[in-house]
Amino acid sequence: MTDFILNETLEKDSIFVHDFAFTTMRLINNASVPWCIIIPKKNNIVHLMDLTAEEQDILMQDVRKVASLFQNLYTPDRINIGMLGNMVPQMHWHVIARTKNDPAWPGPVWGNVPPLLYEKPKLELLISKLKYELDKV
Amino acid sequence: MTDFILNETLEKDSIFVHDFAFTTMRLINNASVPWCIIIPKKNNIVHLMDLTAEEQDILMQDVRKVASLFQNLYTPDRINIGMLGNMVPQMHWHVIARTKNDPAWPGPVWGNVPPLLYEKPKLELLISKLKYELDKV
Repeated sequence: MTDFILNETLEKDSIFVHDFAFTTMRLINNASVPWCIIIPKKNNIVHLMDLTAEEQDILMQDVRKVASLFQNLYTPDRINIGMLGNMVPQMHWHVIARTKNDPAWPGPVWGNVPPLLYEKPKLELLISKLKYELDKV
Repeated sequence: MTDFILNETLEKDSIFVHDFAFTTMRLINNASVPWCIIIPKKNNIVHLMDLTAEEQDILMQDVRKVASLFQNLYTPDRINIGMLGNMVPQMHWHVIARTKNDPAWPGPVWGNVPPLLYEKPKLELLISKLKYELDKV
């Protein structure tokens, strides 16, 4: 998987956090909501059917690990999970910790939250924390 | 599972299509986009962690069966999959066949498509077709 190519929009909008065996997890750089994406580290993956049944199972297990971490870390009102890809074809799964006072509630976050980059020290702290927690998973 | 209770909003907004062993699949009554929901037939399920790991695997397999059916039936530009539940807590997974000329593209459908009930004959035909296809899965 050394020659895995990440879509440049996904790369630009997010920061690397953790590599699972089959997927990679990145934090979306938007401080409005805790929001990350999980991407299979395999090229040319667009549709679910581009993955084997086993790969799909592993992917969903990774998505659930991250959902569980976000649940514990943020105690949100709701975890949102989604695979859309209407803008960026490369398969990526969103995991978002939603609260009733976030700017998009109760709507979905996509297209509904203002661009709001993390302040650098906060971002570094958060990334470290997420890395630390995911190393334990 | 005979005493399974479906949330009344989900019941009102959708029509029963198919029972899998662990989940039930219903069509959202909105002709704007092919859109269905898959619900675990177990009471008081809100978060992923309310299900066992095995139940989560089965649920996701059912979601993928429906996604695969929608892919074959509609040949959409994209399948969207999501679990939000910001409005209705009872766990339900959305599977939506998206096309570049649907009214919400490229945004998400939630809160973004006009209410547009199916005409009754079309709805009956579609439900029959979906039932027939899902009986084969």
